[in-house]
Amino acid sequence: MDALDRVVEQFSSLPTIGKKTARRLAFHLLRQSQESVDEFATAIVQMRSQVRECATCHTFTDQDCCTICSSAKRDRTVICVVEQPSDVLAIERTSEYQGLYHVLHGTINPLDGVGPDEIRLRELVSRLGGGLVELILALNPTIEGEVTTQYIAKVAAPFQLKLTRIARGVPVGADLEFADDATLRKAIEGRVPL
Amino acid sequence: MDALDRVVEQFSSLPTIGKKTARRLAFHLLRQSQESVDEFATAIVQMRSQVRECATCHTFTDQDCCTICSSAKRDRTVICVVEQPSDVLAIERTSEYQGLYHVLHGTINPLDGVGPDEIRLRELVSRLGGGLVELILALNPTIEGEVTTQYIAKVAAPFQLKLTRIARGVPVGADLEFADDATLRKAIEGRVPL
Repeated sequence: MDALDRVVEQFSSLPTIGKKTARRLAFHLLRQSQESVDEFATAIVQMRSQVRECATCHTFTDQDCCTICSSAKRDRTVICVVEQPSDVLAIERTSEYQGLYHVLHGTINPLDGVGPDEIRLRELVSRLGGGLVELILALNPTIEGEVTTQYIAKVAAPFQLKLTRIARGVPVGADLEFADDATLRKAIEGRVPL
Repeated sequence: MDALDRVVEQFSSLPTIGKKTARRLAFHLLRQSQESVDEFATAIVQMRSQVRECATCHTFTDQDCCTICSSAKRDRTVICVVEQPSDVLAIERTSEYQGLYHVLHGTINPLDGVGPDEIRLRELVSRLGGGLVELILALNPTIEGEVTTQYIAKVAAPFQLKLTRIARGVPVGADLEFADDATLRKAIEGRVPL
């Protein structure tokens, strides 16, 4: 059945979904009504056509400017730099941060041919002037995240901002015994007074 | 963002997909081109409208009669009864079985209000006459599967067929030590001469 195989193939192309799960999802949809399957398909198409990047911070939004950038309550003297729009959601869930964001949509990765111009770095630099006081770097603790963090530190140097990065250490609830060496080293290095 | 939330909700309604994975899948689609997202949606809608139940065995097919039922090579004296179309695929992958199938689309489950008329049981009974010799019951080894198996054995009795069920026992590659009691009991009960 070509029609079924095509859907299995489409689902398999999504992250975390293997062939077996893809088949299970397709069979699940076959048991639903045509109307609810149409609704599913329409939701996907509408999302892709309505959601775009915020003109300022480049997170996903269905407006020209996202709700965070356009909010009067946010602290405009701080920008937190992240890799992906999903990172914005993760930090927002903590209710810990009141500043603005900047989404790079990736990291510098020479091996994959991703240079500074392929991510939203120029757009970040254009936001560094004005009343900005602090730039928080919240990229993933990976080699690419590190390279990108260092690159941003260099291009941001002339603006004389307070440059910070989020803490790296032992995750809350984790067991010291099972923490990897690199994490434990960063946790000791970054120790804070009691 | 309503458009994004709707897609996250739709993905979450699928089996095995939680809220976190649903969000991840939605963000993945936002990074694809509008064309490939449209293709994804079209594949789903087309599958649902083209795929229906085979008029004979009730598995999913995009023809009036499925390729197994219409094949001249299959043994028409045996019918294997399964719960779902995915079970047909699983048995076909073994290349062990050459007979026909009958898909019930569920099991008798009084607690969920599923009686014999809610599944394709009447359709099965209508196939029991003619040249049929053997009826293999291959329902899941669950309480509902067992109840349904017993029910079919009763309604099939007047037709004087050879009634069999697939073997229950220790899965190949499994460790006896970790097999549950019920499985081990069935394995001993169903022991075969060496």
